[in-house]
Amino acid sequence: MAEYDDDIAVTPRGDGCFDAQLDGRWTVGGGLNGGYLLGVLGNAVRQVTPGKPDPITVSAFYLGPGRPGPAEVVTEVKRDGGSLSVVAADLVQEGERRLSVLATYGDLDRFGGEDRATATEPELPPVEECFSTVRMGQDLLDIAPMYQKFEMRFPRDGVGWAVGKPSGAGAIGGWFRFRDGREPDAFSLITICDLLPPVTFDLGMPGWAPTLELTVHVRAKPAPGWLKVRHATRTMAGGMFEEDCEIWDSAGRLVAQSRQLARQPRPTA
Amino acid sequence: MAEYDDDIAVTPRGDGCFDAQLDGRWTVGGGLNGGYLLGVLGNAVRQVTPGKPDPITVSAFYLGPGRPGPAEVVTEVKRDGGSLSVVAADLVQEGERRLSVLATYGDLDRFGGEDRATATEPELPPVEECFSTVRMGQDLLDIAPMYQKFEMRFPRDGVGWAVGKPSGAGAIGGWFRFRDGREPDAFSLITICDLLPPVTFDLGMPGWAPTLELTVHVRAKPAPGWLKVRHATRTMAGGMFEEDCEIWDSAGRLVAQSRQLARQPRPTA
Repeated sequence: MAEYDDDIAVTPRGDGCFDAQLDGRWTVGGGLNGGYLLGVLGNAVRQVTPGKPDPITVSAFYLGPGRPGPAEVVTEVKRDGGSLSVVAADLVQEGERRLSVLATYGDLDRFGGEDRATATEPELPPVEECFSTVRMGQDLLDIAPMYQKFEMRFPRDGVGWAVGKPSGAGAIGGWFRFRDGREPDAFSLITICDLLPPVTFDLGMPGWAPTLELTVHVRAKPAPGWLKVRHATRTMAGGMFEEDCEIWDSAGRLVAQSRQLARQPRPTA
Repeated sequence: MAEYDDDIAVTPRGDGCFDAQLDGRWTVGGGLNGGYLLGVLGNAVRQVTPGKPDPITVSAFYLGPGRPGPAEVVTEVKRDGGSLSVVAADLVQEGERRLSVLATYGDLDRFGGEDRATATEPELPPVEECFSTVRMGQDLLDIAPMYQKFEMRFPRDGVGWAVGKPSGAGAIGGWFRFRDGREPDAFSLITICDLLPPVTFDLGMPGWAPTLELTVHVRAKPAPGWLKVRHATRTMAGGMFEEDCEIWDSAGRLVAQSRQLARQPRPTA
């Protein structure tokens, strides 16, 4: 079993409830990564939508930080339709909801229709010319242990944000793959869309940027190989910013889009 | 009382439940407009978040068409925080859920922080040079009675989609105001972001495009006056398309962003 699938495993307890063990190796900056929490919850949802394995649209509201250790996921099927099912789910720890979600699941193999796109694939230098997070120093790994789970490769002229020289453009992009060779699938995109550092790093505002809400649309099944992941913000107002993420597969197809609303990081002293 | 506020009125029944009367004049193409349904549900949510009148982020999952007549809204507070509350709510008719929502409410007047934006305001000709929907023919009003509630003004060279000559760009934009003079507020933006014709009209695919999910972020309180509303799509795949909408106020500020995932209209015979 691949690491990711093992890390998001859930055990049914009946009545749409599931037990999980949140894995401390998905920690970043002291808290568990939101995309990982969504993977655990989304995996429980998948158990209650038989024949509909793929998340199509998932809206996640983060209520409090997840902690390593036991958790439960409580699901409620809102609508069980022919090709799509809508499910509500909460991730609960120590009696408190940490994450509330509404999600539509289906089977992407059964969807047809015309393909058209004016969206353009982000340009990145070849993988072999990029800086690999595998070569991150131990000090950074201590802060963000989750980088042991996957590898990202950033353009050498696009990592100023990591060394105190943000571009100011409000955009971060790079190549992504799981470290253990697990290929991307439609499901894992709901985690991958929230693994990049906050885009505010590139605006010279480092620090944790708590997500209020994240919605991801999975648009197609990804081809095997490296993914391109890029996110950007265009508007900071009222202490919040939106972060739009796109994931493109090795065949040059847009496979997922997400947008989150997050709190602006507090200035560090 | 302004028409819109009257149309979205709800009556508390206790235990977080509310009665509503869905107004048939919000019909378009045979069904009730999704933005109107969200206004009714969102108004009920506002009753259970005292001191937090403004929707900040709202994710709406459409489960079935709303019909004119009685409805109920069932709310559940998921988290009652200091500055933000998260609420789940269902709109129910004839014992069936038609709309399931998660929403974060707060008070935009209490938010601070730095403002920065690289988003650019859509360009539109002056209001007085645009085509007004007030001059729509009776045949169109019969199909879309909701246009009696508000006025839109479209650029004369940007309404080809209405007369069988779509631009193919996948974008529709225009000016918006309520017919009765009600000024826009933060709340009404959750309705206004879903009032334009489906952007697929501009791709030569007229017809009803059922929304699966719509998330709206209210970024600021709008100034009085005309709003600019524009939406666009960039990706059609697997029989679905995303529709990104922006609302800008008369002071040139981005006040709301929404994205929906909708089903591609079926070709008409």
